[in-house]
Amino acid sequence: MPSTPTKTLETFPNPKVGRDFHIHMEVPEFTCLCPKTGQPDFATLILDYIPDKTCVELKSLKLYMWSFREEGHFHEDVTNRILDDLVKVTKPRFMRLTAKFYVRGGIFTNVVAEHRKKGWAPAPRVDLTQFEHQSNTRG
Amino acid sequence: MPSTPTKTLETFPNPKVGRDFHIHMEVPEFTCLCPKTGQPDFATLILDYIPDKTCVELKSLKLYMWSFREEGHFHEDVTNRILDDLVKVTKPRFMRLTAKFYVRGGIFTNVVAEHRKKGWAPAPRVDLTQFEHQSNTRG
Amino acid sequence: MPSTPTKTLETFPNPKVGRDFHIHMEVPEFTCLCPKTGQPDFATLILDYIPDKTCVELKSLKLYMWSFREEGHFHEDVTNRILDDLVKVTKPRFMRLTAKFYVRGGIFTNVVAEHRKKGWAPAPRVDLTQFEHQSNTRG
Amino acid sequence: MPSTPTKTLETFPNPKVGRDFHIHMEVPEFTCLCPKTGQPDFATLILDYIPDKTCVELKSLKLYMWSFREEGHFHEDVTNRILDDLVKVTKPRFMRLTAKFYVRGGIFTNVVAEHRKKGWAPAPRVDLTQFEHQSNTRG
Amino acid sequence: MPSTPTKTLETFPNPKVGRDFHIHMEVPEFTCLCPKTGQPDFATLILDYIPDKTCVELKSLKLYMWSFREEGHFHEDVTNRILDDLVKVTKPRFMRLTAKFYVRGGIFTNVVAEHRKKGWAPAPRVDLTQFEHQSNTRG
Amino acid sequence: MPSTPTKTLETFPNPKVGRDFHIHMEVPEFTCLCPKTGQPDFATLILDYIPDKTCVELKSLKLYMWSFREEGHFHEDVTNRILDDLVKVTKPRFMRLTAKFYVRGGIFTNVVAEHRKKGWAPAPRVDLTQFEHQSNTRG
Amino acid sequence: MPSTPTKTLETFPNPKVGRDFHIHMEVPEFTCLCPKTGQPDFATLILDYIPDKTCVELKSLKLYMWSFREEGHFHEDVTNRILDDLVKVTKPRFMRLTAKFYVRGGIFTNVVAEHRKKGWAPAPRVDLTQFEHQSNTRG
Amino acid sequence: MPSTPTKTLETFPNPKVGRDFHIHMEVPEFTCLCPKTGQPDFATLILDYIPDKTCVELKSLKLYMWSFREEGHFHEDVTNRILDDLVKVTKPRFMRLTAKFYVRGGIFTNVVAEHRKKGWAPAPRVDLTQFEHQSNTRG
Amino acid sequence: MPSTPTKTLETFPNPKVGRDFHIHMEVPEFTCLCPKTGQPDFATLILDYIPDKTCVELKSLKLYMWSFREEGHFHEDVTNRILDDLVKVTKPRFMRLTAKFYVRGGIFTNVVAEHRKKGWAPAPRVDLTQFEHQSNTRG
Amino acid sequence: MPSTPTKTLETFPNPKVGRDFHIHMEVPEFTCLCPKTGQPDFATLILDYIPDKTCVELKSLKLYMWSFREEGHFHEDVTNRILDDLVKVTKPRFMRLTAKFYVRGGIFTNVVAEHRKKGWAPAPRVDLTQFEHQSNTRG
Ligand SMILES: [Ca+2]
Ligand SMILES: [Ca+2]
Ligand SMILES: [Ca+2]
Ligand SMILES: [Ca+2]
Ligand SMILES: [Ca+2]
Ligand SMILES: [Ca+2]
Ligand SMILES: [Ca+2]
Ligand SMILES: [Ca+2]
Ligand SMILES: [Ca+2]
Ligand SMILES: [Ca+2]
Ligand SMILES: [Ca+2]
Ligand SMILES: [Ca+2]
Ligand SMILES: [Ca+2]
Ligand SMILES: [Ca+2]
Ligand SMILES: [Ca+2]
Ligand SMILES: [Ca+2]
Repeated sequence: MPSTPTKTLETFPNPKVGRDFHIHMEVPEFTCLCPKTGQPDFATLILDYIPDKTCVELKSLKLYMWSFREEGHFHEDVTNRILDDLVKVTKPRFMRLTAKFYVRGGIFTNVVAEHRKKGWAPAPRVDLTQFEHQSNTRG
Repeated sequence: MPSTPTKTLETFPNPKVGRDFHIHMEVPEFTCLCPKTGQPDFATLILDYIPDKTCVELKSLKLYMWSFREEGHFHEDVTNRILDDLVKVTKPRFMRLTAKFYVRGGIFTNVVAEHRKKGWAPAPRVDLTQFEHQSNTRG
Repeated sequence: MPSTPTKTLETFPNPKVGRDFHIHMEVPEFTCLCPKTGQPDFATLILDYIPDKTCVELKSLKLYMWSFREEGHFHEDVTNRILDDLVKVTKPRFMRLTAKFYVRGGIFTNVVAEHRKKGWAPAPRVDLTQFEHQSNTRG
Repeated sequence: MPSTPTKTLETFPNPKVGRDFHIHMEVPEFTCLCPKTGQPDFATLILDYIPDKTCVELKSLKLYMWSFREEGHFHEDVTNRILDDLVKVTKPRFMRLTAKFYVRGGIFTNVVAEHRKKGWAPAPRVDLTQFEHQSNTRG
Repeated sequence: MPSTPTKTLETFPNPKVGRDFHIHMEVPEFTCLCPKTGQPDFATLILDYIPDKTCVELKSLKLYMWSFREEGHFHEDVTNRILDDLVKVTKPRFMRLTAKFYVRGGIFTNVVAEHRKKGWAPAPRVDLTQFEHQSNTRG
Repeated sequence: MPSTPTKTLETFPNPKVGRDFHIHMEVPEFTCLCPKTGQPDFATLILDYIPDKTCVELKSLKLYMWSFREEGHFHEDVTNRILDDLVKVTKPRFMRLTAKFYVRGGIFTNVVAEHRKKGWAPAPRVDLTQFEHQSNTRG
Repeated sequence: MPSTPTKTLETFPNPKVGRDFHIHMEVPEFTCLCPKTGQPDFATLILDYIPDKTCVELKSLKLYMWSFREEGHFHEDVTNRILDDLVKVTKPRFMRLTAKFYVRGGIFTNVVAEHRKKGWAPAPRVDLTQFEHQSNTRG
Repeated sequence: MPSTPTKTLETFPNPKVGRDFHIHMEVPEFTCLCPKTGQPDFATLILDYIPDKTCVELKSLKLYMWSFREEGHFHEDVTNRILDDLVKVTKPRFMRLTAKFYVRGGIFTNVVAEHRKKGWAPAPRVDLTQFEHQSNTRG
Repeated sequence: MPSTPTKTLETFPNPKVGRDFHIHMEVPEFTCLCPKTGQPDFATLILDYIPDKTCVELKSLKLYMWSFREEGHFHEDVTNRILDDLVKVTKPRFMRLTAKFYVRGGIFTNVVAEHRKKGWAPAPRVDLTQFEHQSNTRG
Repeated sequence: MPSTPTKTLETFPNPKVGRDFHIHMEVPEFTCLCPKTGQPDFATLILDYIPDKTCVELKSLKLYMWSFREEGHFHEDVTNRILDDLVKVTKPRFMRLTAKFYVRGGIFTNVVAEHRKKGWAPAPRVDLTQFEHQSNTRG
C-alpha cells in the first residue's frame, strides 16, 4: 500500500462476525480547507462502529484522512460525507462519526452523524457501574 | 454580511436532510445587562440541535449573541427567548439550549430549555461504551 | 427585601409556562449546627427543578439558606425539609435537591431527594452525545 | 456508644418515610487481611441506598468497618457480606455497595453488589442535563 | 501455581451465587506482537463481569495475560479471543472486555466485546445520582 | 457608592502594613471592544499584589472593570493600562496583572505585566512542598 | 477539652525539635460575618508551618476556627489576625496561612500571609522532579 | 492584509516599551510535511516572549503558520527556524517557542527553544503562591 | 524473606554510586492506631531519596509499613520516626518523606520531613520546561 | 534501518548547534523482565535533553527500547544503564531520564537520573508565568 493520500479505504474481514462488538478509533490528524476563505480547518475525528462483515484498515484510514488536506469542505457537510464513505466500504451494523472542529469566530463546533443497518438493533445495554480509567503509572 | 450586532439569524440548507445528525456549538461570549440593576451579566451558551431543512450560520450566530450586549434580561427569560429565536429561523427537529451564567450572590445558575418538532422522535440511542477524549499532544 | 436571614422564600412568575425547562442552581454556602454536639456542619446544596407557575428568586434563596445558620439539623432530615419548603412555595413540576456534606468521622455523606408533581411526566430524554465544557481561556 | 470495633450496626428512624430518597456515603478507611497470605488489604467502600424505615448511623458504620481489621476475607466475598449485614439491620428499599480495592498483582479490582426490596421499584428517572461540581474556592 | 505464562485460567467458586453482582478488573500489563511487523503492541485491558458459578482467579489472570507476550495478534481479533477464553472457563451471566491499545500510526484504537448467557437478563438499573470519587488524601 | 461604571478605584487602608502579604483576586467579567472591528472582546483578569499602605476595594474594582465595556482597546495595551491605573491608586510594593483573552483567529493570547516599588525586594521564598487543593465535598 | 468555640489554641511539644519539618493542614470549615452587611462569609484555610518548640493541636484548631462564626471580619484583616494568633502560641520557625474566600461580587479573593522567626532561614531546597499523586483506587 | 499563507510576519509597536511584560500565544493549528515520507505532521505551538520595540501581529502570525503547510521539515529543525524568524522581525528581549508534536512511532516529541537579547536579564522573579484557574461557570 | 510485619528494612547496593539519582516510591498502604483513642489512622506515604551506597528493598519496605498496623503513633511523630529508620539503614545523600493522612475532625494533615547527608549538596537544578504526563491510552 | 530490536542507537546532526534547546520525548512502551522472578515489568520512559552535536533518531530509539523485552533488569539499574547508553551516543550537554514503573507489591516506583557535560551550565532560567495547555477541541 503506497503512502500517498487516497480516497480508497481498505478493509479486512471481521474476525468475529457472530458477535456485535464495538470498535472505537480516534483520529486526531484531520485537516481540510474552508471552501469560503481557502484557509485551513482542523478537527479531531472519532469513529465508533459495530462491524458486520468487514473492518476498516488502520493505515488506509490514515491515508484517507490525508486526502482531505487540499479540499474545501463545510463542517456539517464533510462529517456526513466521511461517514457515507466509511459506510459504503464497510456496510457496518452501526457507525457513529464525531467531528470536533477547532474554534472559528470564537465558537466551537462539533458534529455527530450515525448510520444504522436496516433491520439491525442493538442488544439492550447492560448498564453497569462505570469506573474512570487512570494512567498506568504515578506522577 | 456586516459585522454589527443583529437579531437576524442567517441559515444555510442542511447538507444531509435524510439523516438525523447532531450539531453542537459552544458560544462562550454572551453578555447582557441585569434588568434590575443595569449591571453586566455573563454566560456561556451551548447549542445542541438536530437540523431539519436549515442550519444556523456560524458568523450570524456570533452577531446575534452580540445583539444582547445592551439589553436587560433575566436568566430564565433570556434562555427561553434565544431558543425561541433559533427555533423560529431553523425549525429544527430538536434543539436544546444550555446557558451557564456567571455566579451572582454566591449562587451559580444554569438554565436548559428544549424544543421538539411535532411528530418527530429520535431513533433509540445506540448506547456504546464512552471513552474520554484527551489532548492531541503531551504536556 | 431586607438582608437578614429568613425562612420566607420569594418567587417570580415562570417566564415560559408552556415549556418544561430545567433550572440548575448551586449554593455553596450552607451551614447549620449538629443537633447532638452543637458543632457547625457545612454542605454544598444543588437544586435542579422544572418550574410550573413560579420560580425561586435568587436573593431570597440565599437569605433562606442563611436562616439555618443557628439551627440544629441532621443531614438526612434537613435535606428533606429544605426540599419540602421549596416545593411548598414553587409547586414545581419536578424538583431535586442534592446536599453534599463536609466529611464527618472520616465518612463523606451526600443526600438526594426529589419531588414530582402528580400527573406530570417528563418528555422522554433526547439522548445526544455529551461534550465536556472547558474554561473559556487558556492556562 | 463505645469507640471499639463492633459488628453491631446502629440505626435511626428514617426522617422522611413517605419519600424515596438517596443516601450516598463514602468510607475510605476499610482494611482487612488476605485469607491466603495474612497480609493487609485496603479498600474504599461506597454505600448508596434508599432507606425504608431506618437509616445507618454514621459512627456505628465507622466502628463496623473497623471490626474487619483483624479478619481474613476475599474481595468478592467480603463485599457481599457487608452488603448482607447492612441490609439485615436497615431493610432498605434499595442498597448498592461498591468496594474499590487497592492494586494486587498489578491488577485493580472493584466489586459492586446490590439489594432490592421485594416489590419495590424506583420511580422512572427524570433524566436532566448533568453539571459537574467544582470546588467552592479558586486555586 | 507456578509463575510462568500460561493459557490456563484458574477459577474459584462464586461466593454469592444467589445475587447478580459486578466484578471489575483492570489489567494494565498486556503486550503482544503485531502479526504483520513483529513489533510489540501494548494495551490496557478492562474486564467487567457478572459471575455465575465461578470467578476468575487474580493471579492466573495475570499469568494468562503474560502468555500473549510472544504471540502475534491483531487488535480486533485478540480482544474477541481473550473474551472467548474467559467465557469458556467462567461461563458468566455477563462479561464485557474492553481493550485500549497504544497509539499506532497516530490513531488510537479501543475494542469492546461482550458475552451474555442465554436466558439471562439484568435487573433494570436503579439509576441514582452519581458522585465522582476523589483521592483519600489532600495534595 | 453608586452601581455605575467608573474609572475611579476605591481603596481602604492596609490592615497589616508591617507585613508583606499577598492578595490574589480573580475577575472573570472583563469585556471591551476591538478597536479595529468594534466587536466585543472578553478576558479573565487575575490580580496578584503585595499592598503597601492601601488595598483595592472589591466593589469598586468590579465597577472599574465595567467601565471598559464600551471602549476600544488592544490586548497588550489594555493590560498595561489597567495595571497602571491600579498602581496609581494603591502604590503597592508589588503588583502583577494577568489577562487571559478569549480566542481570536484560532490563537489564544495571555498578557502578564508587573510593577515593583522602587527599593522593595521580596523576602526569599520559603519553598515548601506544595499540595493540590480539592473540593470540600465528594462527588 | 470542651467542644465549644474558643480563641484558646492548644499546643503540644514538637516531637522532633532537631529537624526543620513541614506540617500542612487544610481547614475547609471557616465562616465569619461580613462587618459591613452582617451576611455570612466562607473560606477554606490552609496552614503550612515549620514548628519550633510546639505544634498546633488539631481539635483546638477546629474549635478556634469555630470561634469566628459570630464575628464580623474583613478578608485581608482576618487572615492576618489568625496568622498572628497562631504565631503567638506556637512561635514557629516559619508559618504561612492561605485563605481562599468564596466568591463575592463575582470576584474570587485569596489572601496569603507569612511569618518567619528572626534569624531562621530554611535550608536550600533540594529541588527534585515532582510526581503528581493519584487516588489509591481505580474508578 | 491578504488571507494567503505568507512568510512575512507583521508587527506593531510595543505599547509599553518601558516595562518588561510577558505575552503568551497558543497556536494550535500548525501542520507541515515529514521530509522523509511526505506525510503530514501536526503540532501545537506556544510562544512566550517579552517584547522590546515591536510585537507580533496576531493575524500575520496565523498566516505565517499556514505557510508551512506544503513544506517538509524535521521537528527539531522547524522549531528552531520558526524561533529564528520570529526573533528576526521582533528582536525581543526574550522569546521561547514550545512545539508539541503529535505522536510518531508511539513516541511523543516536544521541542523548546529560546532566544535572549544580548545584555538583557530578567528582573528576579517575585515568587508568589500560585492558584489554579477554573472555568467561569459551573458544570 | 518471610511475609510477616517487621521493623527490619532490607537494602541492596546502589547500582550507580557515581551518580546522584532520584528514587521516588509511593506507598499507599499505611495504617497505625491513634494513641489517644486507639482508633485506626490511615496515610499515603511518599518517599523521595538520592541513595549513597545502598537502596531500600521494595518488599521489605512493604513489610516495614505493615509493622505499624498495631502500634499507636501521632502524625507528626511517626513521620519523623519512619524517616529516621530509613535513614539509619540507607544513609542516603538526601531523603524526603511525605505523609498524607486521612481527614480527622474535618481537617486534612500532611507532614514532610527531610534528611541531608553532612557535606552533601545537590548539583544546581537544570530547570527545564515541564510537561504533564497523560495515560498511555485514550478513554 | 531494519525493524528488529537493537541496542544500536542512531543519531542525526543537531540542526542548531549554536543554541541550547530542549528536546522532550515520551516513550510509553518499555517492558523488560524482573531478574528475580522472570515476570514482565513495564514502564513509561521520559527523556529530556539538551543536545550538543547530535540528536537521538526517533525510530532507532523505539527499536532500542524494544531490545530490553527479553532481558532481566532491576528498576534502579536499568534506568541508569539506558541513560548511559543514550549519553554515549549523543554526548549531550544535559540529559535527564525519568522511568515510571508499573506498581509492584502495592508500591509505585519512579527513577530519575541525569547527566551533565563537564563545563556546561545552563543559562539562568527566565521564569515566566506558566499557563496550562488544553485540548484543541471542546468535549
Ligand atoms: Ca474524567
Ligand atoms: Ca501518571
Ligand atoms: Ca474530560
Ligand atoms: Ca497536553
Ligand atoms: Ca489552568
Ligand atoms: Ca469530573
Ligand atoms: Ca478551587
Ligand atoms: Ca491529589
Ligand atoms: Ca489542579
Ligand atoms: Ca466534590
Ligand atoms: Ca475517579
Ligand atoms: Ca465541566
Ligand atoms: Ca495533572
Ligand atoms: Ca485514558
Ligand atoms: Ca494540571
Ligand atoms: Ca479546547
